Amino acid sequence: MRSGVAVRGTVAEGFESVREEFAAVAAEQGDDYAGQLAAHVHGERVVDLWTGPDFGADTLTGVFSATKGAAYLVVALLVQDGVLDLDERVSHYWPEFAAEGKQEVTLRQLLAHRVGLVGADAGFTVEELADDEVIAARLATQRPYWRPGTAFGYHALVIGALTGEVVRRVTGRGIQQHFEERVRAPYGLDFYLGLPSALEDRFATTLPMRPTAEQEAQLAAAATGDQSLTGIAFNRNHPKAPALEELPNHLVVRAKGPASVGGVASARGMAGMYAAAVSGGDGLGPLLSARTVALFGQIHSVGYDVVTRDHNAIALGFLAVDGSYPGLGQGAFGHSGAAGQLSLADPRSGLAYGYNRRRFAFPGGAAPENARLVAAVHAAATAAR
Amino acid sequence: MRSGVAVRGTVAEGFESVREEFAAVAAEQGDDYAGQLAAHVHGERVVDLWTGPDFGADTLTGVFSATKGAAYLVVALLVQDGVLDLDERVSHYWPEFAAEGKQEVTLRQLLAHRVGLVGADAGFTVEELADDEVIAARLATQRPYWRPGTAFGYHALVIGALTGEVVRRVTGRGIQQHFEERVRAPYGLDFYLGLPSALEDRFATTLPMRPTAEQEAQLAAAATGDQSLTGIAFNRNHPKAPALEELPNHLVVRAKGPASVGGVASARGMAGMYAAAVSGGDGLGPLLSARTVALFGQIHSVGYDVVTRDHNAIALGFLAVDGSYPGLGQGAFGHSGAAGQLSLADPRSGLAYGYNRRRFAFPGGAAPENARLVAAVHAAATAAR
Amino acid sequence: MRSGVAVRGTVAEGFESVREEFAAVAAEQGDDYAGQLAAHVHGERVVDLWTGPDFGADTLTGVFSATKGAAYLVVALLVQDGVLDLDERVSHYWPEFAAEGKQEVTLRQLLAHRVGLVGADAGFTVEELADDEVIAARLATQRPYWRPGTAFGYHALVIGALTGEVVRRVTGRGIQQHFEERVRAPYGLDFYLGLPSALEDRFATTLPMRPTAEQEAQLAAAATGDQSLTGIAFNRNHPKAPALEELPNHLVVRAKGPASVGGVASARGMAGMYAAAVSGGDGLGPLLSARTVALFGQIHSVGYDVVTRDHNAIALGFLAVDGSYPGLGQGAFGHSGAAGQLSLADPRSGLAYGYNRRRFAFPGGAAPENARLVAAVHAAATAAR
Repeated sequence: MRSGVAVRGTVAEGFESVREEFAAVAAEQGDDYAGQLAAHVHGERVVDLWTGPDFGADTLTGVFSATKGAAYLVVALLVQDGVLDLDERVSHYWPEFAAEGKQEVTLRQLLAHRVGLVGADAGFTVEELADDEVIAARLATQRPYWRPGTAFGYHALVIGALTGEVVRRVTGRGIQQHFEERVRAPYGLDFYLGLPSALEDRFATTLPMRPTAEQEAQLAAAATGDQSLTGIAFNRNHPKAPALEELPNHLVVRAKGPASVGGVASARGMAGMYAAAVSGGDGLGPLLSARTVALFGQIHSVGYDVVTRDHNAIALGFLAVDGSYPGLGQGAFGHSGAAGQLSLADPRSGLAYGYNRRRFAFPGGAAPENARLVAAVHAAATAAR
Repeated sequence: MRSGVAVRGTVAEGFESVREEFAAVAAEQGDDYAGQLAAHVHGERVVDLWTGPDFGADTLTGVFSATKGAAYLVVALLVQDGVLDLDERVSHYWPEFAAEGKQEVTLRQLLAHRVGLVGADAGFTVEELADDEVIAARLATQRPYWRPGTAFGYHALVIGALTGEVVRRVTGRGIQQHFEERVRAPYGLDFYLGLPSALEDRFATTLPMRPTAEQEAQLAAAATGDQSLTGIAFNRNHPKAPALEELPNHLVVRAKGPASVGGVASARGMAGMYAAAVSGGDGLGPLLSARTVALFGQIHSVGYDVVTRDHNAIALGFLAVDGSYPGLGQGAFGHSGAAGQLSLADPRSGLAYGYNRRRFAFPGGAAPENARLVAAVHAAATAAR
Repeated sequence: MRSGVAVRGTVAEGFESVREEFAAVAAEQGDDYAGQLAAHVHGERVVDLWTGPDFGADTLTGVFSATKGAAYLVVALLVQDGVLDLDERVSHYWPEFAAEGKQEVTLRQLLAHRVGLVGADAGFTVEELADDEVIAARLATQRPYWRPGTAFGYHALVIGALTGEVVRRVTGRGIQQHFEERVRAPYGLDFYLGLPSALEDRFATTLPMRPTAEQEAQLAAAATGDQSLTGIAFNRNHPKAPALEELPNHLVVRAKGPASVGGVASARGMAGMYAAAVSGGDGLGPLLSARTVALFGQIHSVGYDVVTRDHNAIALGFLAVDGSYPGLGQGAFGHSGAAGQLSLADPRSGLAYGYNRRRFAFPGGAAPENARLVAAVHAAATAAR
């Protein structure tokens, strides 16, 4: 517990309990905790809080897999426009992808994490991981690790490159450029796939997890081999594999903004992006139609994930989160980030949520405190209705 | 524990241990416990027991989802007759169903709870829930909550209406009428899909669960949001949602007998129906051929159920119960009811079983005492062979 | 704990820690423990250990389901040769198999344990279980226990007969003969599908499990009915079902060597077979190309296994073992045996592993000590690289 470090920022009337909950989280996390929490209801920002040493509302960090939400949003826009067809074969758009038994795989199956190309046989250097085109070229010719269609598993570091290559082949431009032009710039979002050097002074490096001895034992017990499917998916099979937590701390990664894990954002940026997708904001309407929202929030893979070795529920790329956060409605979708981030939209209540933290939380992935924070925001939004 | 309230009824020679087990259950349940237990072996009734204040062998209660067994039995008869084809598209029989990506869904997938139409976006009033045609019309035009074929989940309150509409389109009559004519009347069963007003004086209202403080905490911890997929499947998303436990207590529901949850029966009726299906009874042969029994008991969906958020095993509509009740044989099929009911047939041993209780049991669904009662009946039946 | 019974055999330089681990296992197992451990790295044998009364390096025991690895190896060779096509329908090779809704099932689905013919409706005598042709003829005309394609489950005692019949129809010879000619004889392996009578004096009967009272209670709690799907898969539905542990103790079984469970081998034989498959040995190259290794190690069924009622991960017949033994690499494949055996190849590290024991271990299947032994071998192999 700590005292003296205040929670800063504002909440709308009726959301005072969210500030209290965030303050309680901060107090429990210890002296150097730094985090941000933002939420919108039907496009209006109702929560805008932050805390921590040298950590402001405008501070940006790597948001790891929360980046994927930005990538899927671009795909959703292109499907909505009729530019991409979910039931078309990936190899139609990207002929090299047909190699090694992948010719019949559809874009829908790819987004559902069903294709089985979770990493590279020999792993990637950090420079390679930073470049979606390099990743895509490497995986195109590779055999899937499972028979496509018989299983699904989290394509942790490569799904953005694989879907991005489809986007690039069809439109001539990558996910990064589409995101900048159609999402980030118009809505004025602090969410970057490729951080401009002019904004480097707002970037804060991610800090490593600080597990207790007991937590370390738990992590060791659950450890997987570097050459296992899970090890490959997290690129631990490369002899010079960069530590996951260090990825955005490499300039090349945050500068290029690979669409799986290279995004740099704040909580405002994350919540604002989901608000823009579903409700609009900043005087603009929503990016996605109700029909597209329903389609991309529809469960496509559920059950045992062969990479995370745990239960998972995947919509069209986005995670289907209503089962993980009681209170959320059917069709709620979003994504976590490895340091503890969570960002999502709950179309049934009009809620958009973004949580960011600087230091990796135990045990990895969406930090446990999100359960309390989502519940607090949802309860306030429901009461306010 | 209680004393003085006797178990009434009879058991065949060799089934005395079942009476003892039922008496032990009754003694543990408390003073106002009211229940019924019936079982047949190869069509002959060998267990016929009941207990409780104002609760006789002829008392009828709402049996909730045990109703579904009656609905699936009608479908099985129509498939057996060649009137319905399991591998035909639902939209062939029911053109409106083709909307929103459901055109290729087959009757088989519908019965396997794979179509993803688990409820209505805006919920149902109690009057709507009572009317299968209203439910079917509402869902026909709706988008599935998951991509058909990629998951399965319990269509708790609507599966009877969906399959019923197929029956109605093909035969001109609903499941209720078929059930009355082909099953209930010929076999003289106390199992009604639509309770005649003349029998109202035999109806006993269902009583609510009486959880301990600890049980209430467990229920709260497992609670799901009203707008979640689970909430929708149980119609909690309607602002005036009737409590599940109250459904059969509404006259409109028990009078119309919707095929998902509106049945009214006794244990005799439930056991007698499964005996009629597999072994016959009352001087009549079995309703289903061995081939049809094998087909409708064949597992079609197994693993994680996205509605119950737990493991489930579904045959062709019927639950595949051999994994839940050790001792039962491969191909055993039946259905539970929310107040604690369980009814099933075990074709390998010739056993048919029905258990009814008036008060909701913790934690909901087939009451825990069924494990002991099924085991006792099965052991006696095996020993008697 | 015991003392005085030495671990015999040799290890290569750098593998001394494996000898220590095996000695520690032996010491914990009790006075009459008898076991063998062998391992190869890139084809070279680096561990060759054994211990126990009257138990030598050349002692042979029934290896139960570790037999399946030999059967799948034969299938892999025939697929590699272009003689068998994984995506061809089984009924193309074996017309009688088309009965009862199985006409579209492919060889790939059969190998993935997806066809649902896990046993015979009325069970098998021990003589029938010994004869793959009898098993195949019986099952050809039977209805699957689940809808093919909707689930998977371990075909414990029959998968070798089913795949074997395909091999026999196409090549005119059974798996046993192919294995002898292409694998066992050329590589000089102590792994027999059909033990020659001249080697009977090297055979040691399998001894039954000796559970503690607590372990017996655990086994009883997990027990399944003799007529349940699990009971059928393990042939407990036959009135004169032979005890599983006794199978290889019947002369007819080990003489005929049915391809599911009838193999007789030593740890040397098991490890040597996987080394031959992936790396070669005895002056010969590997039996399988890297492409075939990748194909047969590719996950095809994963999640809930309706027979074992537990999580399972199946490649093309072989078990996918990298999830079960942390440290192993993606694509590691092998098989366990009921007495506690484990045998596998880890193509990424070049490791082949075989462990054998005479007495059934609690709780059945790959014995718990394999976790320690695999880890020790893998660690030494990695350090030695």
